[in-house]
Amino acid sequence: MSASPYDALRAWFLGPRAENADLLERLVTEALRDHVFWRRNYHPEDGVVIRETDKRTPGYEDAVATLTQELMGLLAELKRDVPFFSGRYKGHMVWQQTIASQVGYFAAMLYNPNNVTTEAAPVTTRLELEVAAQLARMIGYDPARSWGHLTSGGTVANFEALWMARNIVYLPVAAAMACREMGLSLEVTRPDGRPADIGELGLHDLLGLRGTDALDVWQSLRRAVPRAEWHERIDRHTLAWAGYQEYTRELGRQFGDPLPDGVVLVAATAHYSWEKIVRSLGIGSRQIVFVPVDRHFRLDADALWERLAVLGATRTPVLACVSVCGTTEESAVDRLDLVLEVRERAERELGLSFHVHSDACYGGYAAAVTRAADGTRRTAAAIRADIAADWPDDAWLRSMAALERADSVTIDPHKLGYVPYPAGAILLRDRRARELVAVDPPYLAPTEEKAGEERFIGRFIFEGSKPGAAAAAVWLSHKVLPLDERGYGFLIGRTVAGARALHAALGADVSPFRVVRFPVPDINVVCFVTLHPSLTALAELNRFNEGVYRQLSLARPVGDPEYIVTRTRVTSPHYDGAIIPVLDELGNVSYDVWREEPGGLVVLRATVMDPFLAERKPATDHVAGFVAALHRACGAVMGPESLTDW
Amino acid sequence: MSASPYDALRAWFLGPRAENADLLERLVTEALRDHVFWRRNYHPEDGVVIRETDKRTPGYEDAVATLTQELMGLLAELKRDVPFFSGRYKGHMVWQQTIASQVGYFAAMLYNPNNVTTEAAPVTTRLELEVAAQLARMIGYDPARSWGHLTSGGTVANFEALWMARNIVYLPVAAAMACREMGLSLEVTRPDGRPADIGELGLHDLLGLRGTDALDVWQSLRRAVPRAEWHERIDRHTLAWAGYQEYTRELGRQFGDPLPDGVVLVAATAHYSWEKIVRSLGIGSRQIVFVPVDRHFRLDADALWERLAVLGATRTPVLACVSVCGTTEESAVDRLDLVLEVRERAERELGLSFHVHSDACYGGYAAAVTRAADGTRRTAAAIRADIAADWPDDAWLRSMAALERADSVTIDPHKLGYVPYPAGAILLRDRRARELVAVDPPYLAPTEEKAGEERFIGRFIFEGSKPGAAAAAVWLSHKVLPLDERGYGFLIGRTVAGARALHAALGADVSPFRVVRFPVPDINVVCFVTLHPSLTALAELNRFNEGVYRQLSLARPVGDPEYIVTRTRVTSPHYDGAIIPVLDELGNVSYDVWREEPGGLVVLRATVMDPFLAERKPATDHVAGFVAALHRACGAVMGPESLTDW
Repeated sequence: MSASPYDALRAWFLGPRAENADLLERLVTEALRDHVFWRRNYHPEDGVVIRETDKRTPGYEDAVATLTQELMGLLAELKRDVPFFSGRYKGHMVWQQTIASQVGYFAAMLYNPNNVTTEAAPVTTRLELEVAAQLARMIGYDPARSWGHLTSGGTVANFEALWMARNIVYLPVAAAMACREMGLSLEVTRPDGRPADIGELGLHDLLGLRGTDALDVWQSLRRAVPRAEWHERIDRHTLAWAGYQEYTRELGRQFGDPLPDGVVLVAATAHYSWEKIVRSLGIGSRQIVFVPVDRHFRLDADALWERLAVLGATRTPVLACVSVCGTTEESAVDRLDLVLEVRERAERELGLSFHVHSDACYGGYAAAVTRAADGTRRTAAAIRADIAADWPDDAWLRSMAALERADSVTIDPHKLGYVPYPAGAILLRDRRARELVAVDPPYLAPTEEKAGEERFIGRFIFEGSKPGAAAAAVWLSHKVLPLDERGYGFLIGRTVAGARALHAALGADVSPFRVVRFPVPDINVVCFVTLHPSLTALAELNRFNEGVYRQLSLARPVGDPEYIVTRTRVTSPHYDGAIIPVLDELGNVSYDVWREEPGGLVVLRATVMDPFLAERKPATDHVAGFVAALHRACGAVMGPESLTDW
Repeated sequence: MSASPYDALRAWFLGPRAENADLLERLVTEALRDHVFWRRNYHPEDGVVIRETDKRTPGYEDAVATLTQELMGLLAELKRDVPFFSGRYKGHMVWQQTIASQVGYFAAMLYNPNNVTTEAAPVTTRLELEVAAQLARMIGYDPARSWGHLTSGGTVANFEALWMARNIVYLPVAAAMACREMGLSLEVTRPDGRPADIGELGLHDLLGLRGTDALDVWQSLRRAVPRAEWHERIDRHTLAWAGYQEYTRELGRQFGDPLPDGVVLVAATAHYSWEKIVRSLGIGSRQIVFVPVDRHFRLDADALWERLAVLGATRTPVLACVSVCGTTEESAVDRLDLVLEVRERAERELGLSFHVHSDACYGGYAAAVTRAADGTRRTAAAIRADIAADWPDDAWLRSMAALERADSVTIDPHKLGYVPYPAGAILLRDRRARELVAVDPPYLAPTEEKAGEERFIGRFIFEGSKPGAAAAAVWLSHKVLPLDERGYGFLIGRTVAGARALHAALGADVSPFRVVRFPVPDINVVCFVTLHPSLTALAELNRFNEGVYRQLSLARPVGDPEYIVTRTRVTSPHYDGAIIPVLDELGNVSYDVWREEPGGLVVLRATVMDPFLAERKPATDHVAGFVAALHRACGAVMGPESLTDW
């Protein structure tokens, strides 16, 4: 009998009924005792601070009593938490965490390393860089040129990505101003491939160089100037130094060219945190240009080109384009390959390049399905044989393969990596970009680059303290579930199969109700709307689906919900490109009515992170169970008499 | 025999020799099993997914073998981590974590709540708000008016504080533009108390209003306009919407008043992350105005006034003043009371107000020493009777009491709160400020304010996911160690006593070497320089102290260090105000030589977070031990013959 991943899967998690409780307890206890004996063996000549007699004092006993009692209180409170672990939970992007990550986190937490410098985390800083390199290899980045690190989550990772993108875009401007002041001449490559002297380029051309070329010119400039003079001769000309207010005026003075403000192109489905990010960076919400989605909820590449053509014509600088790999609401995977084609066309035809960022916070780990055990790319046929006859299609595979050409990618291990919060990650295709955000604290003397990376990761990142335990959790989880077909690829493939089974089952007859489904998802989030023939107005329909949501969530007024889903609202204009087929199926709601409704259409959302959903012989058939519960929930909202038909 | 905090202290931590291993293991096991039975009891009618027979398959067994083996590998690796727990560790701001926080973290981590919405964290979101309210009460904020939450750490907390400060400063400008457009008239209060119509004020006056008055006018404006029109009539005029580039031009157009760019006043001792923060916010490094420190390493209030007088004369807007409570390098506590006096004077004499932020990431918890069990302020005499005859002095108490008047305060539980990473906190004196950063995601329909707070904390914070486990850790720790003389006040008092004992001991004869100490610290970081009569040049002295640092750190070339310290570099001009007494004692180094040395003076740094250091009958006398080890380290660097005198 050979080892099957279906069996391995059963060892990876504590289990919906805590079936692996013995295993988890054994490993937790092992980690705890191991730490205990480390303390005992450290300078054993030191005396005992807490003597056994101390433990018999009222002060000690009171403190232990308080601790025990308050812990019992906390444990009781936690019973009101969300049962993410259950096959009945289909809500947010969270399910069980791997045993490896739970134990890894706990083990390292006892040491409490701070992954900001090796002085405070000699072991886990290395694990963090290893983990980032593993993720980089998975998406296809060149390990020698790329770099990455962990963050507290997707918002900080995306924030760092856009912060770096802005710094890169403005580099050639700073370089041009520095060259002008020093009378230096530096050659740069334009996006269409023609060489030029940096002094010849206007502001619009400078802001439209390719990122790699911008970093090249920056590097050349630094080589041409002694290090001690960098600040005075180069850095003084950067946006980071001058700030936006001064820079706005200085660009006017130096280039006499009042360009429109730089914009950020963002897929209309992007996470709401992008708005916080552009606000805080000082870019401003107004400068977000949303790119419409197609009927698969993917960024519409044609629409992107149209936007770019307008931006090119109005000479508007583009700071970055944010494409999504696994949208929060629908798990849609943008056609990143087409986004990159559009950029190439813009470089050729408009002489305009820009930073492409993939927000793969949710979907990044799905790239593991494309990797064989030896790290090579699997064929489409091999993957389909494992997962589904029609998944993934060639377009999906091209989108995932394109990640290796994105300038930056963010991936959250605490989503499809099945590890505890907090664990986000940012990957940079060109490691030189990290130098642009470096700040040296007084307790680190300048060193050459390599030493800096090993000793003081904090130099290149935003956060000043970060749990090394998170790095240990991700590291151990990657050891047990490799980032290929044996580990995460298999796990995520099972959730895709589960989501497809659920999507199919929702097409069954649930009369007198009807379920209108969004298209089969790109990964594993199934969206749908329930309806009843008696409901015709959009407001009624929304009220009905809100009611169903309340039945199938912890918001349920009476009793436990049978299953747990979430809901979202699909509004205009962000979803204009995707809504027509949905409205067509709904039948009674016109596009104009939908567009005028500020709350849009209420949509129910089932996230399938449970790899056991698509079992052939399940212990409990949660696919059928879900459809039946949905039917009962609809009935409960509509009134019991509505159910007699079924 | 009554309960003594000295005895309670012995139950709070696992102990340097893991003396409380049984207790920790019992509670961890309890938490684990409690969670296990929760899973078992959830829908018990669901079948078992992982059957006992599954556990006898090769796939399962291989997975368990890999997990166990890789965990053993991780545990072995972790042995090379830093022994923070030991009485011998006096390096960075970390020691042991309270058992309460370790168990609280672990217990909640098994549930893995995400403190961004109650839908994903119904219990721990409440705990987070409770914990923030406890910290707010400790520093003296009015619970009804203030608000706070946890963050991943100090950098994000400080970032949020300055982001909010900037938003507040620009509110009256947006309000004035909105009023102008609508032909509305609104009364505002100038910093000197005189009322004015907002339309009468120039740009400089608008940017210099008090924060509360700015929020008042904002609130009045919102009340005057229907909610559906807020965006079009009000928000469109904000910096957050327009972005810095457009705003810079718009202010020029609307006010025709080219003011200098807004600056941020920062204590010269402030953490290096402030530079990252102003860069990323688009304010620019150039706009940091460092305020010199006095000989106690505290922000010099007279120098602050001088800076403000110049800024007032040049009509330069001040976005915020950042004062530090517990500097990273020296644990110095700025005279916040004097900072606030200077602001009052600026309001009166210059008609100029600004946001005052206290970066109490390190020192915030020390406010617990000022609180009695019933929450009232303790008298100076009572505190001194507990801790030291001359600590705290009246100035220190006034500084801590002044926290209640700061507009925002950041406090890191993962520093003097003795909890695991990640746990920072931000507190706002006026809760209305949080509305200025609010972004509504599609899955939250607009609700009234109160419901929003309870249901969706993510609306008001930067990060989109946050471990609820961190909130549980801090919450349980506060239950066992209250934020007053019984808990954190006692704990931190012991570390202060320890630091003072160490400081005193470093004054003893260590011939042929000499130790030049910084002043007695405001909390518990002891800084000093070692020297030998043969060393006269600054470069030699620095090399010597770098050598001593290597002996007393994990950078030691051979063998384990006896003790672990860190080192920093004290450079000009940031430390000009503090260096003279140090140079006087060193004897051979002139101010001019020091000022010209880019690396400044190398200083050794012992952070005393070990509450057992100042025991009357210690198990091991680590005060004497440290001085003896320092002597040996000096000898090892200078050569063994140098030691014969001692």
